[in-house]
Amino acid sequence: MKNIKLVARYDGTRYSGWQRQEDSDKTIQGKLEQVLRRMTGEETEVTGSGRTDAGVHALHQVANFKTADTRSPEEMKAYINCYLPEDIAITEAVEVPLRFHSRLNAISKTYMYRIWNAPYHDPFLRKYSLHIPQPRLKVKAMRRAVEYLIGEHDFTSFKTSVSKNKSAVRTIYDIRFEKNDDTLEIYIRGDGFLYNMIRIITGTLLEVGMGKLAHEDIAGILDSLDRSKAGPTVPPHGLFLIDVKYPDEALNI
Amino acid sequence: MKNIKLVARYDGTRYSGWQRQEDSDKTIQGKLEQVLRRMTGEETEVTGSGRTDAGVHALHQVANFKTADTRSPEEMKAYINCYLPEDIAITEAVEVPLRFHSRLNAISKTYMYRIWNAPYHDPFLRKYSLHIPQPRLKVKAMRRAVEYLIGEHDFTSFKTSVSKNKSAVRTIYDIRFEKNDDTLEIYIRGDGFLYNMIRIITGTLLEVGMGKLAHEDIAGILDSLDRSKAGPTVPPHGLFLIDVKYPDEALNI
Repeated sequence: MKNIKLVARYDGTRYSGWQRQEDSDKTIQGKLEQVLRRMTGEETEVTGSGRTDAGVHALHQVANFKTADTRSPEEMKAYINCYLPEDIAITEAVEVPLRFHSRLNAISKTYMYRIWNAPYHDPFLRKYSLHIPQPRLKVKAMRRAVEYLIGEHDFTSFKTSVSKNKSAVRTIYDIRFEKNDDTLEIYIRGDGFLYNMIRIITGTLLEVGMGKLAHEDIAGILDSLDRSKAGPTVPPHGLFLIDVKYPDEALNI
Repeated sequence: MKNIKLVARYDGTRYSGWQRQEDSDKTIQGKLEQVLRRMTGEETEVTGSGRTDAGVHALHQVANFKTADTRSPEEMKAYINCYLPEDIAITEAVEVPLRFHSRLNAISKTYMYRIWNAPYHDPFLRKYSLHIPQPRLKVKAMRRAVEYLIGEHDFTSFKTSVSKNKSAVRTIYDIRFEKNDDTLEIYIRGDGFLYNMIRIITGTLLEVGMGKLAHEDIAGILDSLDRSKAGPTVPPHGLFLIDVKYPDEALNI
């Protein structure tokens, strides 16, 4: 038995997200499992580092599966890419220790949310960014706002509540901005994220950037533990999972 | 009467190219004229700097139209973008002298052809690049090959013949390569291009990059004035019109 770690890149536009559902054609996990079962002839199941929601993209999602297949990881990668649809690709396949688990061993994840901030729409980024025609966002205020979010906090105000009694304490290591002409990319790295957390944080930062909230309001929103105090949940098509990190000892055979 | 210069950006995927046809919904020019006629209430016609073929994209196509409309260029830009479909945008609108003609006054054009050179497909570039899974292209040989193409030449070998007796003499000012991991972008700047010329030059350079032609073979192909000696016409979806230049005196009012 071998354990294979995969890195996947996908355009989430036409999928209901990562996680397998009854109609396996509609999810990334479902599509991947179809191809793996064809390759291995086994009832292969894939474990992802976490779900991505409907419409969310990934430049670097990590998954793993166990198999008795005798192909090398490079041969598997070539086989899988050959049968995957064009909007999903495997960029890496390596053998890892049998104990490796792509979700449980993950120590940090980075997401990027892209905003297109110009009066007109962009023909090439329209499916890969949120269009904010105006006003020109105040990035300086947004940079000050994120200082309140860095570190370990109860992020109850920044999640869509589904489960009740679970802890909403998470650690955000870093939030940085990349501004290029009319695009603003927000990179958020943390130990893990609650349901819709990145999209609600982004929606709240945008209210700061638009002058609807002051940067120091973030402290009160965080303390309130009240979702209704934070900004809106921005749409999924601007969101990309861009990295998942593991400790070396989880990966080294 | 005013003459307005527009800069347009478009995703050519679902269009039959720039030039108006009977079904105006299928061309960029047709779509633009629909919106301009709505705005001006006149039988407005748009002149482009040149055609782009079906499926070809543009980051910077230039066009102009004459109108008695009293809106400012900025107001026109906002109006037009409001009614254009999401895959076409106007990034600039300025008033120019009445004598300005976007095709006749153009002194140079730059096109970019993008190649995705990796064993797997890319989910985000699949509609905006040509996928060459293997071999890894020899960019050094391609760089040497372009030296034969720079300058004034009869490019009969590098055009799809439609008209016969017209001159095929053109000047290429510059061809440069941008290589980033798995993408290779070829930038070609010249005084004007024949039908399919960029796509045939790219197809020929790719044969050099794949080792099917030697870089010095380009000289003989050029001299032969024989289309069958050059490489294939690569598909349109990797091609972008990225700049059109004019002399200052054509633009300044």
